[in-house]
Amino acid sequence: SRFEYVKTFELPGADALLPDTWLVVRLDGRAFSRFTDVHALRKPNDLRGLALMNAAAGRVFEELGGAVVCAYGHSDEYSFVLPPRADLYGRRASKIVSSITSVFTAAYVWNWPRYFDEVPLQYPPSFDGRVVVYPQTQHLRHYLSWRQADAHINNQYNTCFWALVHSGLEPSDAQRALRGTQTAQKNELLFSRFDINYNRLPQIFRKGSFLFRQASGGGAKGAEDTISSKGRTPGTETSRSDPGTGTCEIVAHEEHCSDWCGKVQASFRKNLVCIHQDIIAESFWQSHSYLLD
Amino acid sequence: SRFEYVKTFELPGADALLPDTWLVVRLDGRAFSRFTDVHALRKPNDLRGLALMNAAAGRVFEELGGAVVCAYGHSDEYSFVLPPRADLYGRRASKIVSSITSVFTAAYVWNWPRYFDEVPLQYPPSFDGRVVVYPQTQHLRHYLSWRQADAHINNQYNTCFWALVHSGLEPSDAQRALRGTQTAQKNELLFSRFDINYNRLPQIFRKGSFLFRQASGGGAKGAEDTISSKGRTPGTETSRSDPGTGTCEIVAHEEHCSDWCGKVQASFRKNLVCIHQDIIAESFWQSHSYLLD
Amino acid sequence: SRFEYVKTFELPGADALLPDTWLVVRLDGRAFSRFTDVHALRKPNDLRGLALMNAAAGRVFEELGGAVVCAYGHSDEYSFVLPPRADLYGRRASKIVSSITSVFTAAYVWNWPRYFDEVPLQYPPSFDGRVVVYPQTQHLRHYLSWRQADAHINNQYNTCFWALVHSGLEPSDAQRALRGTQTAQKNELLFSRFDINYNRLPQIFRKGSFLFRQASGGGAKGAEDTISSKGRTPGTETSRSDPGTGTCEIVAHEEHCSDWCGKVQASFRKNLVCIHQDIIAESFWQSHSYLLD
Amino acid sequence: SRFEYVKTFELPGADALLPDTWLVVRLDGRAFSRFTDVHALRKPNDLRGLALMNAAAGRVFEELGGAVVCAYGHSDEYSFVLPPRADLYGRRASKIVSSITSVFTAAYVWNWPRYFDEVPLQYPPSFDGRVVVYPQTQHLRHYLSWRQADAHINNQYNTCFWALVHSGLEPSDAQRALRGTQTAQKNELLFSRFDINYNRLPQIFRKGSFLFRQASGGGAKGAEDTISSKGRTPGTETSRSDPGTGTCEIVAHEEHCSDWCGKVQASFRKNLVCIHQDIIAESFWQSHSYLLD
Ligand SMILES: Nc1nc2c(ncn2[C@H]2C[C@H](O)[C@@H](COP(=O)(O)OP(=O)(O)OP(=O)(O)O)O2)c(=O)[nH]1
Ligand SMILES: Nc1nc2c(ncn2[C@H]2C[C@H](O)[C@@H](COP(=O)(O)OP(=O)(O)OP(=O)(O)O)O2)c(=O)[nH]1
Ligand SMILES: Nc1nc2c(ncn2[C@H]2C[C@H](O)[C@@H](COP(=O)(O)OP(=O)(O)OP(=O)(O)O)O2)c(=O)[nH]1
Ligand SMILES: Nc1nc2c(ncn2[C@H]2C[C@H](O)[C@@H](COP(=O)(O)OP(=O)(O)OP(=O)(O)O)O2)c(=O)[nH]1
Ligand SMILES: O=P(O)(O)OP(=O)(O)OP(=O)(O)O
Ligand SMILES: O=P(O)(O)OP(=O)(O)OP(=O)(O)O
Ligand SMILES: O=P(O)(O)OP(=O)(O)OP(=O)(O)O
Ligand SMILES: O=P(O)(O)OP(=O)(O)OP(=O)(O)O
Ligand SMILES: [Mg+2]
Ligand SMILES: [Mg+2]
Ligand SMILES: [Mg+2]
Ligand SMILES: [Mg+2]
Ligand SMILES: [Mg+2]
Ligand SMILES: [Mg+2]
Ligand SMILES: [Mg+2]
Ligand SMILES: [Mg+2]
Ligand SMILES: [Mg+2]
Ligand SMILES: [Mg+2]
Ligand SMILES: [Mg+2]
Ligand SMILES: [Mg+2]
Repeated sequence: SRFEYVKTFELPGADALLPDTWLVVRLDGRAFSRFTDVHALRKPNDLRGLALMNAAAGRVFEELGGAVVCAYGHSDEYSFVLPPRADLYGRRASKIVSSITSVFTAAYVWNWPRYFDEVPLQYPPSFDGRVVVYPQTQHLRHYLSWRQADAHINNQYNTCFWALVHSGLEPSDAQRALRGTQTAQKNELLFSRFDINYNRLPQIFRKGSFLFRQASGGGAKGAEDTISSKGRTPGTETSRSDPGTGTCEIVAHEEHCSDWCGKVQASFRKNLVCIHQDIIAESFWQSHSYLLD
Repeated sequence: SRFEYVKTFELPGADALLPDTWLVVRLDGRAFSRFTDVHALRKPNDLRGLALMNAAAGRVFEELGGAVVCAYGHSDEYSFVLPPRADLYGRRASKIVSSITSVFTAAYVWNWPRYFDEVPLQYPPSFDGRVVVYPQTQHLRHYLSWRQADAHINNQYNTCFWALVHSGLEPSDAQRALRGTQTAQKNELLFSRFDINYNRLPQIFRKGSFLFRQASGGGAKGAEDTISSKGRTPGTETSRSDPGTGTCEIVAHEEHCSDWCGKVQASFRKNLVCIHQDIIAESFWQSHSYLLD
Repeated sequence: SRFEYVKTFELPGADALLPDTWLVVRLDGRAFSRFTDVHALRKPNDLRGLALMNAAAGRVFEELGGAVVCAYGHSDEYSFVLPPRADLYGRRASKIVSSITSVFTAAYVWNWPRYFDEVPLQYPPSFDGRVVVYPQTQHLRHYLSWRQADAHINNQYNTCFWALVHSGLEPSDAQRALRGTQTAQKNELLFSRFDINYNRLPQIFRKGSFLFRQASGGGAKGAEDTISSKGRTPGTETSRSDPGTGTCEIVAHEEHCSDWCGKVQASFRKNLVCIHQDIIAESFWQSHSYLLD
Repeated sequence: SRFEYVKTFELPGADALLPDTWLVVRLDGRAFSRFTDVHALRKPNDLRGLALMNAAAGRVFEELGGAVVCAYGHSDEYSFVLPPRADLYGRRASKIVSSITSVFTAAYVWNWPRYFDEVPLQYPPSFDGRVVVYPQTQHLRHYLSWRQADAHINNQYNTCFWALVHSGLEPSDAQRALRGTQTAQKNELLFSRFDINYNRLPQIFRKGSFLFRQASGGGAKGAEDTISSKGRTPGTETSRSDPGTGTCEIVAHEEHCSDWCGKVQASFRKNLVCIHQDIIAESFWQSHSYLLD
């Protein structure tokens, strides 16, 4: 038709991402402060919510074929890593960002009842997305480290904050009590006041979730990862919050940690795994160097 | 942390859309050929599917406040129009495209059971999105005309194609029969062979769906639009397909047309309306010029 | 060769400017504070320098065929206007900006001896360039108004500043004397202290230079413009600086204004003209509306 | 002024180049087929022209401080390499491309009489520019290899072509004679028909020109490079074209090769050198690895 000329304004080339670079698509829940409130997610971490995020991320791997190499998520965000060789949609930014965001969103809403069966969804939650280009592998490593360090800092703060609030402080007082405290002080506070050993909290809370495909034929390694994906080492003593209050939800979660992670893992094709380990240190990448090739 | 520098690669300015231009965000179902097959949507048009698309589009108006002026959809696609003054997310392309795509997707999945209660969702459907920048109002008018002309051409072809197939032709024979035919010939074929008067098919099939907010205080105009949103004029004779085959679904839909549109309309806030009219001609825009100001 | 793949990183589409929009390429002298010092240009305005800028701009019109509609310059800057229909280099930003900057620069250096024959060029001067996209004609009008308003403000300030400095003030004292003064006060100062009627200074100083092609066949209009391009109306009394100091160069220039403009004009093809008028008001555009079509 | 809002359309961020990547700015003479004809440059290579290009490139190093690491040129083109750490103009593409193009152009025009004193410039020549982003050092190496391989292929072809034409063939016949010939065949033709040993032609023709700053304190290395920058090894037998024709300009140039290169070198600050060596092989980069750090 004579109107077709408007198609020329699409300028698809204007959208093309630099070849031979790492691409990271990061999604973040839109207004999840409200969403988690309305649906009464447990504070500071809700295992069901994290499991649902991981299940939705797994769906992205499934739908986008081999384009996604690994992914990292915590809180209401998830980052998907596409390797330099990726040619998904000819590297058109809009198509990549919108498709990944849409697949993730659809899976989140669709799987909601599987993870929150007792909690009806009040309204459909959504995510924003962006794509970031990293020229060197070192940048990608640092990106993942940045997100995991962030997960740790937020989680430690939130654990203290909610422990204080659950123990009866006003939110504003809890905030004031934590202002300017360092890592060591926060751990000390958790231990001395709430009998919580921060380092024994579920790994999924402290380390976030890292999804990737096992190297094919990596039998032994697979097994190992699967174990660690359960989020705790058997025989680990569990931390304890003040049994007197009964309100702190930290412990309750932990006990079900491997159940939830197992449920997520069961929804994946067998070579996709979700682990909760340190991905900042060299050691992880030495044993998974194929992810960065 | 020392990793934070990676944030500087986001270059949000690189993403900013030209000020004072019309923005169109167009979504399109990813692999809906397969999705509509797997879920046995009626051919060539499924009123439940169109109604669900319209409901999802309504949710975008609701979530994005005043940023969206109007929207047009047909088949598995929807275009959202943001006016030159729009400052949504500082006009950052990724945030706009990903958020609209995500809100739409979430609403589509969430509302699925309301429109397809008898058809369980087999897997979560998704959409891609893109944003196009139009400098002049004339371009926007032409964009909408382009999509509506496309809707008409596709619908007319598909109506013929499925009538032929339902009447017993192999798809490849139906395709051959239609090759090179003009509009008039297709209408003639529908009428002579299937007793279908194309121009009396439901407007929602022929014109697609146009969503917009009523001018405030436009009492009379609102009423009028609401009527037309029912997709047919009272007293119109309905077209009839070959009653012998019983397989053609064209008529069946039509009867429920106003029911489905009514259900969608009921899900909207009261000043948002969905109509199925010609938006190519001047006349519509003369009575709705405030949308283009 | 096996190295050719690197060509694919050029992503020319990434560079394409939105169709059907006004493009403005603005050049600005790099470090002209130093360049004008080293070459002892007259302060605040050097007619030879302005004439050379205009001659260089004329060369851009000549080399880029019909792509440039009009141009506006003052001080060390020049803006070239490309109409919405322009398809120069397929609207690739880099090619447009670099070519216009290069043609201008080459002409500036090449023509230097013609305008500064007594002043040898000490080193080659250069310009930076950028392209700005304007969706509507109104934006373009405002752009040109912005530059002309800027020219006026700077010129008025500089005229006062240099008059004060020439009269013996230290630069820092001149600056202090002018801080916070309004237009009317500056004119008053020029008149009362230096007997300079600001509004009678050469138009080229106060209005800058506007280049465009005459409408073909516009005989009368052409003549009129040519007259005004001489920069003063015959019979106008000239302003006078303090004859006692002898250092103020303002008057000296003025007398040669039409000579310099005539020399530039003579270097142009006959339908290209350079005028020094108000381009903010409607009136100019009413008589030159074809430039904006 | 109320017009200042138009400045917001500049979107400088839209222009920012990805951090931590190699940038290559490539300039190319606009319509140099005509320019070299009009000014009767020697065919296929004019030492004066190449020397002028190199001198202009040297000026870019001088004006842009440490931002440029090295540069490579041949024919009417020059590529400037900015390292990943470069922060010139905050990595704004337009400013970088336009400034480098302008500095180069200005120096080319300004230096013209120094290299072509007997040939008056008929009109000011100009260049276009573009910037290309390379994420990895390997890409940059390949880029430079691509340009040098191109220089070789073009030069070999042009040497044959002009030898044939100078010997009396029509251009179209020379073209036909060369169609489909391989490197070895072209060398054979030069040797057997014109007594030209291709590999003994001046290195500047076969290898192009590479400019860089010597590592500070690299005494020995500097000396070596300076020798090689003379473009021939002492004692090398010169090739000879058919002395009967007298028209082939190939030999004539060679004899003055070191003179011209010396003149260019003399115009540089002492640590900037221009060499004519193989930059494809590893060996060069092993001894100049600091350029790639
Ligand atoms: N109760 C609870 N809240 C969570 C959990 N995970 C995330 N959230 C909440 C905490 C934060 O309020 C919010 C994430 O912070 P954001 O910075 O992404 O803010 P929000 O999503 O509200 O706004 P945004 O649209 O991203 O700018 O989600 C959880 O496991 N339990
Ligand atoms: N049966 C049925 N199919 C429909 C209806 N609306 C859309 N579809 C199908 C017909 C087409 O196969 C498909 C839309 O065509 P597209 O060009 O968007 O292709 P598709 O989504 O398969 O691929 P894409 O990912 O968009 O490239 O959706 C409907 O109401 N009923
Ligand atoms: N004496 C004299 N100076 C002039 C004339 N026209 C322009 N200039 C000088 C005054 C300013 O110092 C300079 C223009 O100001 P800019 O803001 O463009 O600064 P400049 O070019 O130094 O730096 P830049 O590289 O543009 O950031 O050129 C003139 O006619 N006579
Ligand atoms: N005679 C002579 N010509 C040369 C020399 N170096 C370059 N040229 C000419 C040969 C080519 O015609 C031209 C360079 O080819 P280009 O592909 O850059 O074409 P041209 O500049 O004409 O067009 P363009 O504006 O770059 O698309 O310059 C030289 O040393 N001697
Ligand atoms: O955490 P981010 O990167 O999403 O940071 P933000 O403060 O939410 O900013 P935005 O989403 O607007 O980029
Ligand atoms: O209808 P469109 O614009 O989506 O066209 P397409 O052929 O699907 O192309 P793409 O989605 O890759 O732009
Ligand atoms: O007058 P401009 O626009 O050149 O403004 P500036 O302050 O010189 O800034 P830049 O040249 O860096 O855009
Ligand atoms: O050699 P290039 O890259 O300049 O190639 P071209 O064919 O001249 O193309 P363009 O200059 O238009 O990119
Ligand atoms: Mg955010
Ligand atoms: Mg969020
Ligand atoms: Mg978040
Ligand atoms: Mg598509
Ligand atoms: Mg589709
Ligand atoms: Mg479609
Ligand atoms: Mg500037
Ligand atoms: Mg300047
Ligand atoms: Mg300036
Ligand atoms: Mg070119
Ligand atoms: Mg060229
Ligand atoms: Mg060339």
